[in-house]
Amino acid sequence: MRFFSDNAASVHPNVMAALAEANTLDTAYDGDARSQALDGRLSDLFGTDVAALWVPTGTAANCLALAALCPPHGAVVCHRDAHIQNDEGGAPEFYTHGAKLYLADGDGAKLSPDTIRAVIDAIANDVHRVQPHAISITNATEYGRVYSPDEVAAIGALAQERGLGLHMDGARFANAVATLGCSPAAVTWQAGVDALSFGFVKNGAMSAELLVFFKPALAGATLYRRKRAGLLFSKGRYLAAQVLAMLEDDLWLDNARAANARAAELAAAGARLVHPVEANEVFLRATPEEAAALRAQGFDFYDWAAGEIRLVTAWDSPADQVALLAAAIGQL
Amino acid sequence: MRFFSDNAASVHPNVMAALAEANTLDTAYDGDARSQALDGRLSDLFGTDVAALWVPTGTAANCLALAALCPPHGAVVCHRDAHIQNDEGGAPEFYTHGAKLYLADGDGAKLSPDTIRAVIDAIANDVHRVQPHAISITNATEYGRVYSPDEVAAIGALAQERGLGLHMDGARFANAVATLGCSPAAVTWQAGVDALSFGFVKNGAMSAELLVFFKPALAGATLYRRKRAGLLFSKGRYLAAQVLAMLEDDLWLDNARAANARAAELAAAGARLVHPVEANEVFLRATPEEAAALRAQGFDFYDWAAGEIRLVTAWDSPADQVALLAAAIGQL
Amino acid sequence: MRFFSDNAASVHPNVMAALAEANTLDTAYDGDARSQALDGRLSDLFGTDVAALWVPTGTAANCLALAALCPPHGAVVCHRDAHIQNDEGGAPEFYTHGAKLYLADGDGAKLSPDTIRAVIDAIANDVHRVQPHAISITNATEYGRVYSPDEVAAIGALAQERGLGLHMDGARFANAVATLGCSPAAVTWQAGVDALSFGFVKNGAMSAELLVFFKPALAGATLYRRKRAGLLFSKGRYLAAQVLAMLEDDLWLDNARAANARAAELAAAGARLVHPVEANEVFLRATPEEAAALRAQGFDFYDWAAGEIRLVTAWDSPADQVALLAAAIGQL
Amino acid sequence: MRFFSDNAASVHPNVMAALAEANTLDTAYDGDARSQALDGRLSDLFGTDVAALWVPTGTAANCLALAALCPPHGAVVCHRDAHIQNDEGGAPEFYTHGAKLYLADGDGAKLSPDTIRAVIDAIANDVHRVQPHAISITNATEYGRVYSPDEVAAIGALAQERGLGLHMDGARFANAVATLGCSPAAVTWQAGVDALSFGFVKNGAMSAELLVFFKPALAGATLYRRKRAGLLFSKGRYLAAQVLAMLEDDLWLDNARAANARAAELAAAGARLVHPVEANEVFLRATPEEAAALRAQGFDFYDWAAGEIRLVTAWDSPADQVALLAAAIGQL
Repeated sequence: MRFFSDNAASVHPNVMAALAEANTLDTAYDGDARSQALDGRLSDLFGTDVAALWVPTGTAANCLALAALCPPHGAVVCHRDAHIQNDEGGAPEFYTHGAKLYLADGDGAKLSPDTIRAVIDAIANDVHRVQPHAISITNATEYGRVYSPDEVAAIGALAQERGLGLHMDGARFANAVATLGCSPAAVTWQAGVDALSFGFVKNGAMSAELLVFFKPALAGATLYRRKRAGLLFSKGRYLAAQVLAMLEDDLWLDNARAANARAAELAAAGARLVHPVEANEVFLRATPEEAAALRAQGFDFYDWAAGEIRLVTAWDSPADQVALLAAAIGQL
Repeated sequence: MRFFSDNAASVHPNVMAALAEANTLDTAYDGDARSQALDGRLSDLFGTDVAALWVPTGTAANCLALAALCPPHGAVVCHRDAHIQNDEGGAPEFYTHGAKLYLADGDGAKLSPDTIRAVIDAIANDVHRVQPHAISITNATEYGRVYSPDEVAAIGALAQERGLGLHMDGARFANAVATLGCSPAAVTWQAGVDALSFGFVKNGAMSAELLVFFKPALAGATLYRRKRAGLLFSKGRYLAAQVLAMLEDDLWLDNARAANARAAELAAAGARLVHPVEANEVFLRATPEEAAALRAQGFDFYDWAAGEIRLVTAWDSPADQVALLAAAIGQL
Repeated sequence: MRFFSDNAASVHPNVMAALAEANTLDTAYDGDARSQALDGRLSDLFGTDVAALWVPTGTAANCLALAALCPPHGAVVCHRDAHIQNDEGGAPEFYTHGAKLYLADGDGAKLSPDTIRAVIDAIANDVHRVQPHAISITNATEYGRVYSPDEVAAIGALAQERGLGLHMDGARFANAVATLGCSPAAVTWQAGVDALSFGFVKNGAMSAELLVFFKPALAGATLYRRKRAGLLFSKGRYLAAQVLAMLEDDLWLDNARAANARAAELAAAGARLVHPVEANEVFLRATPEEAAALRAQGFDFYDWAAGEIRLVTAWDSPADQVALLAAAIGQL
Repeated sequence: MRFFSDNAASVHPNVMAALAEANTLDTAYDGDARSQALDGRLSDLFGTDVAALWVPTGTAANCLALAALCPPHGAVVCHRDAHIQNDEGGAPEFYTHGAKLYLADGDGAKLSPDTIRAVIDAIANDVHRVQPHAISITNATEYGRVYSPDEVAAIGALAQERGLGLHMDGARFANAVATLGCSPAAVTWQAGVDALSFGFVKNGAMSAELLVFFKPALAGATLYRRKRAGLLFSKGRYLAAQVLAMLEDDLWLDNARAANARAAELAAAGARLVHPVEANEVFLRATPEEAAALRAQGFDFYDWAAGEIRLVTAWDSPADQVALLAAAIGQL
């Protein structure tokens, strides 16, 4: 019973069906009808004009966004536990040609205007210091916390005041929106976000994420960067098809709600929460012996910080397994 | 009736079936059973110990190979019509951090020891000149020509003599091997090739290529570079599944033979060949009026150099459409 | 008797005196009075508002200019014999993060609108091809040829029409202006040049060149790039002092005239010229035996292409040595 | 009376004399006799075979060293107050093509095996994390603290155990050695240092630093990188001359002793030291009012952290000014 990560979840049947349906000859690269439909489909979803590019991984989406917002000689402010800092193998530095990441603090991997200011106000405005050009936040965060529209807007206001771009790593954007119950617009462009990595892989797709620019002009050079990074699939239609299937009838939200509900069941199982459970990740205090006891019952998961374990649910987490795990937690 | 390129061909049913079969929970990234099987499967195919990494595009395979063979301050010798020079949007320079491509000549986009020497012998051995570190050849070439094992071996011997790495862009490697009738080993490592971009996408896969290192140690840093480029899919099993399906019962060769046979039928249609047809690309002399006449009959294809058109067949080119096109060519 | 290159010439006494004079405590980096005076001094010289940054080498000047005019995913068109292509060890690719150089033709290493068009018109306007973003010309060229204001303006018009930046490598700009007898403005910004590498080292300075932006806004990011490249000297005043000494009383022009005059004396010595002598480089046809005969008389120089030798004069080439060499050439 | 930094100090007369003496024609780049003498001269000084390359700035020396020790996909561990992290405008990331800097702690900007282990032991050994490849320490540190040979050796042992390269930023190496009274060897290669940035500019030179490789093979690719960075001066003899003059009769040590002695005089002036004074930097607690009082008496210096000021002495700090400043401090 696997609670390692949603990133290994299975592919939703609707997505598999969409791949089969796309399996006819069409124009190569992103010239096919499905790829060409993305700008419009996402503009509808967000209620504003956007440019939307498929990419195969969240790392690619994040790093193309950063490259669009930060020059090689600049810096991006992110949380010190951010995925872009710790889990992307240096991809941000690769795609930006060596921009720095400045690390800020905040509970639950959430930044705030105060913690961002603490970093950037210490950077003297001269050529000896790498100047900040962008902020990157993750919603839901690496600890399953969710930024509200107001919280994002506060950061957005700071970004605008300081002339910084604002990127949102939305590998679990669906889980955040499902929790917030707001429009996708409210927590992104209406709050000052310039670029969103809109994740689908953790949520039922096979290999398609979207990079959404709320300032469509940012897509111009990005199209060249995507090609230059070897990310322009010749059969792009199979990526676009995945995205379109995920958006159809709000499957992306349904899947996220399912994953979140499973996490809530685990969260309700005991008073061991390290972080409030706001999406589909559950961090529990557990001694090594307790962790071993759970594993002995067939549950797989990652140890996190000392005395902590991480449990992640996905759209396809079997309800019976979740119930068993919740019970096991309750009996620790 | 589309003869633009094999890169937009449909996905073979066996590959689709393999995707469906892989659609269960497994370990993320390349930790799943299918990904882990690749080194062994490819070592069997090539009859020697290899390291084999899936990547989603041929550009990614090529450029990771170049980065493994050439430092940022070095150069790669390739044909002036090579895909890496003209069609990858600067990806070689991105992945290698700015290595140069030195352009050599040769009929049909084929290099030879002589044309390579003409380039590298002119490079003074000092720090003012970017020094060559690798050679990259394409088999089958951009003009559908095929290097024989002996021809590759002659280049391999030069590479070894000069201390240069040797990369083979095998976007249409299957087509070349199908034509040669030799073992995959004979035209690669036995002829001095260090790294092969083994293409499957043009030949029936959806989004999986292999980077094969015949010196497995080269894979070490490449695993980091693949991650750093945002190419390490969390659901890598769906890439490995495609490759394994293509290798099963020599589907890769069957598909290539089918595409080559269709091209041969077109080649037989008239005495207009610009290049000998040795794989699945047919370059014909055709006036603009003749090209227009073909298009008027429903055939789509690219114009190439002035007075030339390019026709590409794929594993799924309908036999009846090919017959119609051959007839139309004969009647020009 | 050394006729290898002007790049090893001695330092003019006025420059040495200026270094001694600058040898007092002042503000570090480019905050000193001399560095701060450069923008104004050069704006006066060029009759327009410019930004002028000292750098220690011509390669640094060239490559910072290219980085200002071309993004990593773009290309610069230059002559196939350009210094940036052949003699800078890949520095353009390093500074631009992997932009390509597209190589154009032209007698005497001079580009023309026609030869530039021949290159850029062949680049399809799509993401698969690296798009040209700038043109770089060298005045005087690598073969000692000089572009007239009209010739530059023709290229400048093409650059403007196509939205390309225009850089002039002026390692021997002084020699060109001395020959042309025009204002420095006429052959630069008035002809469409955006950035000039204004060389002093070959002309009597020790280690200071200027990067002059005729669109001063281009200097903004360049100040960061200069620092990031390790080129921001803490004792910048000694660089600025060299430049100011070279500009004082037109020393730069006097020195260039002297070098040009010596070259003219060599050019007059025989009917062996490979290129018209318009600056301070003389390319002569000479058999290996003839070259050996000159060397036997104590003259040092480089062999160039087969059957050619290159002789370079400098501001300090001793008149008597030049006379001896001219005589020796005449007697071949 | 300037106590901002030693980096704006004047140039020692012996160095000026050496420049004048070098002002004859010689071979370009590093082919001249002086440049060619450096390997031998430094091998003598360090009592082992070294390769020694001149570069114009400390940033260039540091970053070429890091590029030699760390691949683009790797990381360098340094102190969070290190010059390479805070004061080089992102040059380490530029030269290494985007390697990360991992920031460790330690009093007085000094690392220790414990603080280094705290960083690297937290890095999981997989492709998702950027792996450490090198350690960089600064001696004397940014706070004027000095590592003893034993302290360096402890870090060197850790580096060797973990397979990490070890770089020493010696912008003030002379000041450290002057304090330690040890051989230059004892605190470098004998303690496990692979590459030293040997600073001269802060200590009486004009524009020359040395990059010393104790594993001479590391110089091979570095020669190419130096050229590629636009750092290979055509008149390299003027850089080599500066270094040779600084080494002659131990001028480098004499100058450092003078600067250190001046700092000691300031340190003796009051009980306000933030850090022990071990080289030529003095950090004092001072309220804004006290700082203003000093400035009102004509002393210039930088404010540092809140309630701290930094005073830096140089080889040429006038004894009378130092005495005045010491007195003023005593009277605060």
